[in-house]
Amino acid sequence: MLDKESLKLHKKLGGKLEIKVKQHLSSKRQLSLLYTPGVAGSVKAINQYKSMAYQLSLKKNTVAVITDATAVLGLGKVSPEAALPVMEGKCLLFKELAGIDAFPLCLKTNNWQETMVVIRSLAPTFAAINLEDIAAPDCFKIEENLQDLGIPVVHDDQHATAIAVLAGLFNAVKIVGKNLKKCRLIVCGAGAAGTAVIKLLHYYGNQNLIAVDSNGIIGKHRRFPDEYKKELAEITNPDNNRGNLAQAVRESDILIGVSKKNLFQREMIRSMNRQAIVFALANPDPEISRVDALKAGATVYASGSSIDRNQINNALVFPGLFRGLIDSHRKKITSQLKIKTAHAIASLITRPTSKKFMPSVLDKKVVRRVAEAIL
Amino acid sequence: MLDKESLKLHKKLGGKLEIKVKQHLSSKRQLSLLYTPGVAGSVKAINQYKSMAYQLSLKKNTVAVITDATAVLGLGKVSPEAALPVMEGKCLLFKELAGIDAFPLCLKTNNWQETMVVIRSLAPTFAAINLEDIAAPDCFKIEENLQDLGIPVVHDDQHATAIAVLAGLFNAVKIVGKNLKKCRLIVCGAGAAGTAVIKLLHYYGNQNLIAVDSNGIIGKHRRFPDEYKKELAEITNPDNNRGNLAQAVRESDILIGVSKKNLFQREMIRSMNRQAIVFALANPDPEISRVDALKAGATVYASGSSIDRNQINNALVFPGLFRGLIDSHRKKITSQLKIKTAHAIASLITRPTSKKFMPSVLDKKVVRRVAEAIL
Repeated sequence: MLDKESLKLHKKLGGKLEIKVKQHLSSKRQLSLLYTPGVAGSVKAINQYKSMAYQLSLKKNTVAVITDATAVLGLGKVSPEAALPVMEGKCLLFKELAGIDAFPLCLKTNNWQETMVVIRSLAPTFAAINLEDIAAPDCFKIEENLQDLGIPVVHDDQHATAIAVLAGLFNAVKIVGKNLKKCRLIVCGAGAAGTAVIKLLHYYGNQNLIAVDSNGIIGKHRRFPDEYKKELAEITNPDNNRGNLAQAVRESDILIGVSKKNLFQREMIRSMNRQAIVFALANPDPEISRVDALKAGATVYASGSSIDRNQINNALVFPGLFRGLIDSHRKKITSQLKIKTAHAIASLITRPTSKKFMPSVLDKKVVRRVAEAIL
Repeated sequence: MLDKESLKLHKKLGGKLEIKVKQHLSSKRQLSLLYTPGVAGSVKAINQYKSMAYQLSLKKNTVAVITDATAVLGLGKVSPEAALPVMEGKCLLFKELAGIDAFPLCLKTNNWQETMVVIRSLAPTFAAINLEDIAAPDCFKIEENLQDLGIPVVHDDQHATAIAVLAGLFNAVKIVGKNLKKCRLIVCGAGAAGTAVIKLLHYYGNQNLIAVDSNGIIGKHRRFPDEYKKELAEITNPDNNRGNLAQAVRESDILIGVSKKNLFQREMIRSMNRQAIVFALANPDPEISRVDALKAGATVYASGSSIDRNQINNALVFPGLFRGLIDSHRKKITSQLKIKTAHAIASLITRPTSKKFMPSVLDKKVVRRVAEAIL
């Protein structure tokens, strides 16, 4: 139903973004200043000092939202064209929430190496690059290998999601009166978001982490196709537990889903410790609904959806994150900064309750706090 | 002076373009329609029928203005960042003159093959691609090889310039009472614009064409590094003349410069036939100034500059050309269509005189006429 109404709105709009000129063209004189021949002055200035592009061109405030369309929403791989409405939506949030001019680029490429070539070639135009909806493990390889580009390259499905989850956990454990570092914590889904969540929680100091993917509990007993899951096996599951998701969840304190819809059953929630915290963050449909999770005994619940009262979504983080990166001329965000940012978001709710422990994505204070944390 | 004033304006603006959202975000409900989860409806629709992207996303009305910064204005190769103010200016014209949303992309690539890979990967996002300020012969190779992309790929430095020149010539020969097909016509500069001008004039039926590049008159007596100049040798210079620019110009009727500033001397203009037509189109500075050309006896003069009363510039053509291509869903523009378009532009001046024979770039009727000619 929401899909249909949204489709109708998209048809009406015919694209959610347009280009706006900052100065209208009303005379030949203006043409000669804004374009040729006068524009040669700015060309020469930037050609001499590259950094002048931040003063004289849209590079100043423009971010590219780039995807290869391999992991769009929870829908998996789609055609690059089909990813456009999502990337445009993201750009809309950038503008509305943080005043950043973002432009969507949905790439048709054959492999991650080609995606890298393309992004490298695009860098001169932008102040920062937001990698978006790229499947693991390519997203890790691409982000890692582009850190020398001279501008921030951030896959916010990883980092912004991890920060939002940590912010949510800071407040959730206050509600249930537990110590986050000591909680038994299950992360279901070891893709881009899951990997980043686990790494950040490990860095924060949680020693009782279990990661679960479609093959069950991740641990040193398993063989992995890439180094990224191997790294997860090293920082999680200290007792080398084996088993499936249901077995992992039993007697845990916190269950975080960054996986697929309907993966959590009520029996799983019932098998958790008292005062259970459940974040079901799959998009567009969560791993378990609020109603079902609460019925099964969860005390604290959040989903990634805009319609949930406690939304845990990278949209809480990425506008302020990029605002802060651009304004501070930082090139990357460290784990320490991520924790600082999570605290900044969590602190916006002074008395967290299970009804309300996350600020709204639309709350302008969120962007300001996040940007300030990074400055 | 103009450069300095323009530089000041660019500093004040800090980029000439920004992103505008078509629908503001004022509620969580809107967020759920414009972004996740509702946006999944549009993703699924486009993933099933690719052409739905023209209805549901910015692909509908968005053009990429892409350069590799190898031939920017008349300045030659500059850094990709330095090309931004020019490409932004072009996008500003697209919006102001034709209501097209255009976005500038200044690529950092190592060769034309890499540029091709990048442009191919970018195609899904755009309704059309405007190649801009790419040096010959790469511009020919890139444009030719991308004609299978499924959207128009137009290097308008070639085609729009050729159309504008032909429009100018249609009116100029009326003023001097000569037959364009029989005029002895010299084109100085055999880069992107020069090649396209020569090819279009040849197609139109002029049999007395001479092309001159930095090595002198082009002809079958010379050896060429690529097939493109070889083709020019085949369609020009039927008597296989040899010599330099000054020798070529002697006793000619029309001299068209698409080369470098100050290349035409007064003596050259004096050596032309009576009622000489001189188009000095190098940017930002012409091959000869209006004052000098007229003093040396030229009857009709035009330059490519915004401040000239008779501006012959691709800006007369490209907004309407792309408007027409997008609205008609045509994939390319034929030589016949180019001639039709040139007539449409020329006919906007009902009684051409040497004082006024070209419509203004800012005249909204130009865009309409050009788009209609292509529809």
